Amino acid sequence: MAPQYAPSLRSRLAPLLCFLQTGFIVIAAFYIEIEKNVEVDGNTFSNFYAEFQDVNVMVILGFGFLCTFLVRYGFSGSGFNLLVVGIASQWAIILNGIESWYNLGKIRVGLRSILVGEMCTASALISIGAMLGKANPVHLILIALLNVSGFILNEWLLQTLLKVRPLSSIMLLHVFGAFFGLMLTWILYRKGSKQGFEKEKFDRKSGLFSMFGTLFLWMFWPSFNSILVDHRTPERKLGAICSTYLALAVSAVTAAAVSVLSSPKGKLNLIQMQSCILAGGVSVGVAMSAIHQPWEAMAIGFTAAIISTAGFKYLKIHMLFAFECHDTCATLSTHGLPGLLGWLAQLLLQIKDCNDHTVAIRFSVFHISTLFITISTSLSMGILTGFLLKWNFWRPSQNKKCFDDQAFWEFPHNAVRK
Amino acid sequence: MAPQYAPSLRSRLAPLLCFLQTGFIVIAAFYIEIEKNVEVDGNTFSNFYAEFQDVNVMVILGFGFLCTFLVRYGFSGSGFNLLVVGIASQWAIILNGIESWYNLGKIRVGLRSILVGEMCTASALISIGAMLGKANPVHLILIALLNVSGFILNEWLLQTLLKVRPLSSIMLLHVFGAFFGLMLTWILYRKGSKQGFEKEKFDRKSGLFSMFGTLFLWMFWPSFNSILVDHRTPERKLGAICSTYLALAVSAVTAAAVSVLSSPKGKLNLIQMQSCILAGGVSVGVAMSAIHQPWEAMAIGFTAAIISTAGFKYLKIHMLFAFECHDTCATLSTHGLPGLLGWLAQLLLQIKDCNDHTVAIRFSVFHISTLFITISTSLSMGILTGFLLKWNFWRPSQNKKCFDDQAFWEFPHNAVRK
Amino acid sequence: MAPQYAPSLRSRLAPLLCFLQTGFIVIAAFYIEIEKNVEVDGNTFSNFYAEFQDVNVMVILGFGFLCTFLVRYGFSGSGFNLLVVGIASQWAIILNGIESWYNLGKIRVGLRSILVGEMCTASALISIGAMLGKANPVHLILIALLNVSGFILNEWLLQTLLKVRPLSSIMLLHVFGAFFGLMLTWILYRKGSKQGFEKEKFDRKSGLFSMFGTLFLWMFWPSFNSILVDHRTPERKLGAICSTYLALAVSAVTAAAVSVLSSPKGKLNLIQMQSCILAGGVSVGVAMSAIHQPWEAMAIGFTAAIISTAGFKYLKIHMLFAFECHDTCATLSTHGLPGLLGWLAQLLLQIKDCNDHTVAIRFSVFHISTLFITISTSLSMGILTGFLLKWNFWRPSQNKKCFDDQAFWEFPHNAVRK
Repeated sequence: MAPQYAPSLRSRLAPLLCFLQTGFIVIAAFYIEIEKNVEVDGNTFSNFYAEFQDVNVMVILGFGFLCTFLVRYGFSGSGFNLLVVGIASQWAIILNGIESWYNLGKIRVGLRSILVGEMCTASALISIGAMLGKANPVHLILIALLNVSGFILNEWLLQTLLKVRPLSSIMLLHVFGAFFGLMLTWILYRKGSKQGFEKEKFDRKSGLFSMFGTLFLWMFWPSFNSILVDHRTPERKLGAICSTYLALAVSAVTAAAVSVLSSPKGKLNLIQMQSCILAGGVSVGVAMSAIHQPWEAMAIGFTAAIISTAGFKYLKIHMLFAFECHDTCATLSTHGLPGLLGWLAQLLLQIKDCNDHTVAIRFSVFHISTLFITISTSLSMGILTGFLLKWNFWRPSQNKKCFDDQAFWEFPHNAVRK
Repeated sequence: MAPQYAPSLRSRLAPLLCFLQTGFIVIAAFYIEIEKNVEVDGNTFSNFYAEFQDVNVMVILGFGFLCTFLVRYGFSGSGFNLLVVGIASQWAIILNGIESWYNLGKIRVGLRSILVGEMCTASALISIGAMLGKANPVHLILIALLNVSGFILNEWLLQTLLKVRPLSSIMLLHVFGAFFGLMLTWILYRKGSKQGFEKEKFDRKSGLFSMFGTLFLWMFWPSFNSILVDHRTPERKLGAICSTYLALAVSAVTAAAVSVLSSPKGKLNLIQMQSCILAGGVSVGVAMSAIHQPWEAMAIGFTAAIISTAGFKYLKIHMLFAFECHDTCATLSTHGLPGLLGWLAQLLLQIKDCNDHTVAIRFSVFHISTLFITISTSLSMGILTGFLLKWNFWRPSQNKKCFDDQAFWEFPHNAVRK
Repeated sequence: MAPQYAPSLRSRLAPLLCFLQTGFIVIAAFYIEIEKNVEVDGNTFSNFYAEFQDVNVMVILGFGFLCTFLVRYGFSGSGFNLLVVGIASQWAIILNGIESWYNLGKIRVGLRSILVGEMCTASALISIGAMLGKANPVHLILIALLNVSGFILNEWLLQTLLKVRPLSSIMLLHVFGAFFGLMLTWILYRKGSKQGFEKEKFDRKSGLFSMFGTLFLWMFWPSFNSILVDHRTPERKLGAICSTYLALAVSAVTAAAVSVLSSPKGKLNLIQMQSCILAGGVSVGVAMSAIHQPWEAMAIGFTAAIISTAGFKYLKIHMLFAFECHDTCATLSTHGLPGLLGWLAQLLLQIKDCNDHTVAIRFSVFHISTLFITISTSLSMGILTGFLLKWNFWRPSQNKKCFDDQAFWEFPHNAVRK
C-alpha cells in the first residue's frame, strides 16, 4: 500500500525551497549582473557554447538517468537530480562570485560561471549517489548546499595555501564527492541494510534507462575534461579530448573483461559495467596536466577500469559489512578510487619528467598536501553534514519506504483528471 | 481486443501524405535552391550549426518524447510528432520563402530557413499537445499545415502592420499555439471527457520516457531563445542564454515547491512538474528583448512557475468542466499563461525603462495591438481548423480508441516475422 | 529458467579482450602520438568538435539503442554495441595510421582519425545488425575486427587502384556493411529461423527505446554526411547539411505512407518505420558529391523510402525463405538498398551533367568498378568471417538462448547485494 502522505515534503521541502529561491533572487537583485565580456579565455563564446551544452547534458541528463537503475526509484532519481542542480548551481554561482563581489561589488554571471557552478554541483551529485534511495529531498537539498560550500572552501584553500591551479582543484571533485558521500552513508547508516532492501534492485527497463544516462556521460566526458583547458592552447585542449576518448574506450573494453572474470557465473553485470566504463574518464581528468602520450592515457584507463570493477565487486560489500557504509551507487569505486589513481598517476608522471631530485621531492610534497587537504575537508564537511541530517526535524523516511517513489510522488489511477 | 483495421490510415492518410510530398518535391524542383551565402547574421554557419542542432533535438526529440507520458500512446506520441515535423517544416520553408520567391523567383533554403521552419512547426506541436490522444494522424497533419499557415500569416501581419521585429513575432509561437489548440479542443469536444478516459494516465516507465523529452527541452531551451539573436551582438546573445538558464533553474525549484503545496497528499506530481519547469523558458523567451538584469529573468521564472503550476492544478479542470475544453497536455498552463506573462513582463520592463510618458503610452498601444492580433489570428484559425476537422470524411476515432496506440500501430505477437 | 553459466564469456571473451587491449596499449606505447596540428581542413578543431560529438552520439547511442527493440535483448543490444565501438575504433585508428606509420614512423591520433575510426566502426555495426541476437559477444568482436579490416582494405584498394576520393570511399560503408552482414547470416544460418524465434519481437517499451536511438540517428545524420566535407568549401558543407535534412524529412513522410499502404490491416509498423525513415540519409550520403539541387535530394529521399519500406516488407521474408538469410535488423533494406540507390543516383546525376559522351562513359566505368570492388571485398570478407565464426571453439549460443539477455547478463533478484 502506498503511503498516504509524505511528511517531509509539504512542511519541510516547500518552505525550504521557497526560502532559498526567494533569497537567491534577492541576492541577484542586489549583486548579480550579466557578464559583458563575451570572450572566454581568448575565444568567443560561440565555440565555448557547444562544449558547455555537453557538460550541461552530462550534469542534468547523465547523472539524472544514471540514478534511474533502481526499479521503483526512477522518478526520484531523475526528478530530484534536476531539483538539486537547479538549487545548487545557483548557490555555487553565488559562492564562486564572492571574490569578485569583494573586489568589484558585483557577481558576474556568464557561461563560464554557470559552467563552474554545474561542475561544483557534479561533486554534490556524486555524494548523493552514495545516499540514493535512503534520503528524502530535504536531505538532498541540504547535502547539495553543504557539499558545494565545502567544495568551494576546499578550492579556496588549495588556491590560497598551495597556489594550485583552478583547473586541477576542480578536477578533484570526484575525490571530494566520493569521500563526502561515504561519510554521510557511514553516519546515516540504517539498520537492516545488511539484509538488503527489497526494492534495491534493477530490472530490464530500469537498466536501460540508466544505460542512457551512462552513455551520455561516456560520450561527453571528453568535453568535461577539456572545457576548462585554456582556448589559447588548443593543442593541450585537443590532447585532453583525445586522451579522454582513448581512456574511455579502453575502460569500456577492460570493464567488460574484468566484469566477466569476477562474476561467479561468468556473466556480465550491467550496473557494474555502467559504473566502471567511466573510470578512465575520471582518472584521466585528474591526471590530465601530466599526460602527454596516448599510451599513458590508455594505461591509466586500463588500470582504472580494473580497480573500479574490483572495487565494485569486493570493496562495496566489505564497506557495508566491515564499516557499515551502505554506498548505493558505489561512488567509492566509480569516482573515489579512479580519482585517487589519477592523482597517483599524475604524481608518477610528473616525477618521471623531472630531472632534478629536489624539484621532484618538492612536487611530491605539494601534490600530497593537495590530496590531504581535499580529503580532510571532504571528510570533515561530510561528518558535519551527516550529523545535521541525523536531526529528526527533517523527517527521514522509514526503512520500508526507502528506494520507493511512492513515498514522494503521486501515482493516481487516472493521473490527469483526479 | 485490438481494433482490426484503422479506417483513417490507408484511405485517408496515405493519399494525403503522397499528394503533399509529391507536391512539395514539384515545388522544390521549380522554385527552391540551396542558399549560397554561408554567413548567417555575420557569422559562419559552423558556429550556428551547433545551436541549430540543439533546436532540432528539442523539436524532434523533446516535443516527441514529452508526448509519451500516456501509458498506451507512446508510439503515436513520438512517431506522429516526427511525421508532423517532416511535413510541416517543409511547408513552413515554402511559405516563409514566398517573399523571396516574389522578389527573386527562387526560395532559398539554408540553415536559417530550416531553423525558422522548425520553430513554426513548434507552434503546431504545441497545438497538437492539446489534442493529444484524441485525433487521428490525418487530423494532426491538417492541424499542422493550418497552424503553420496561420502562424506565418500572423508573422506577416505583425511585420507589415506594426513593424514588429521578426524575432519578437516568432517568440509569440507559444501564445499562438496554445490558443489555437484550445479552440480545437473546444470545437472537437468529445462527450465522455468529463468522466475521464480509461487510458489517459501515466505509469512508472512512460513517466520516465516523457522525463527524457522534458529534460532535453529544459537543457537546450537557452539555445532556442538565443539562436535568432544577431551574432553581431554577442553580448545580447550571451545575455539571452544566461537569462534563460537562470529562469529555468528557478522554475524547476519553484515548480517543485508549488507542486507539493497544491497537492492534497503533499506529494509531487511528475507530469505537473514536467509542464511547469519549462515555464520560465517560455516567459523569458517572449520577454527577452526587455530583460537586462539576471534578477528580472529569475523573478519572471519564479512567477511563471507559480502561474503554470496553479494553472495545471486548477485551471485545467475548470476549462474542462466550465468550457468543455479537454486540454490533454495542459498547453494553456505550459505555454499559454507563461507566454502571456512574458508579454506582460516585457511591457512592464519597457515602461519602467522609459522616461517619456508619450513613448511609454505609444509602446503600450503597440504592444497590446501585437498581442491582440496574435490572439485573434490564433483563435480564428483555430475555429476554422476545428470546423474542418469536424467533417466525418477524416474518419475520427471512436471514444474507446482514444489514447491507444493499437488503433494505429501493429503489435504482432512475433513482430518481425508474421 | 535462466542459463546458469555463459560458456563463451569467461574462457573466450575475457582472454580475447585482455589480449587485444594489452596489445593495443603496447602498439600505442611505441607508435602512437597525439596530433600536434590543431587545424582540420583549414578550420580550428573547435568548430569541428561539435560535429564530431554528433557523430559520436550517433555511433554510441544511435546504433546502440536502435538495437534495443528486441523485447529481451536490450542490455546486449546497447552494451555489446559500446564494447564493439571501444575495441573496433582503436583497431581502426591503428589500421588507418599504417600509411602514416610507414612514412613517418608514428601514427598520429587526432579528432579526425578518431572520427574516421568511428565511421569504419559504423560499417561493422551495420553488419552486426544482421546478426543481432544470434551471435555471442566473442563473435561480435571478431566480426567487428574483420569487418573494419576489410573496409579499410577496400578503401585502400579504391584509393590506390581507382583514385576514388576518401570521402566517397568512406560513404560506401552502408553498402559494405550490409553485404558483409548478409554473407554472415547466410553462412551462420540457424535451423529453426523459418519458424521464428519466440523472443524475436518488440513491445511498447522496447519500441520506444529503439525510437530514441533512431531519432538520434535521424537528427544528427546531416552531421554524419557533412563532417568530412572540407571546411574550406563551406558552401558544399552547407549544401550537404540541407540536402540531408530535406531527404530525411521526405523519407519520414514517405515511409509512413508506404508503411500504411503495405500493411494488410492498414496500420503503421514502428520497427519498419524506424528502418525506413533513415533511408534518405543513407542515399544522399552516398550520392552527395553529385547533388546540387534540393529537389534532387528530396526525390532521392522519396525513392529511398519506398524501396526501403518495400524491401523491409517483402524482401526480408524472401531472403529468409529463398536464401536462408535471417537478417534481424533488415540491414539490406535499411542500408544496402538505399546505398545502392545513392550509388545509382550519383551515376545518373553525373552523366546528366556531362556534355561529353566519352567523359560520361569513362565515369560510368569508373563508378561501376568502384561498386564492383566494394561488393567483392565485402562478400569475400563476409564469407571468410562467416567460416571463421562457424568454428565451435567460439562456443555459439544454442537456439533457445538466442535473442535473450539472460544468456550473458546477470539478473539477480537483489541486484546490488547478492
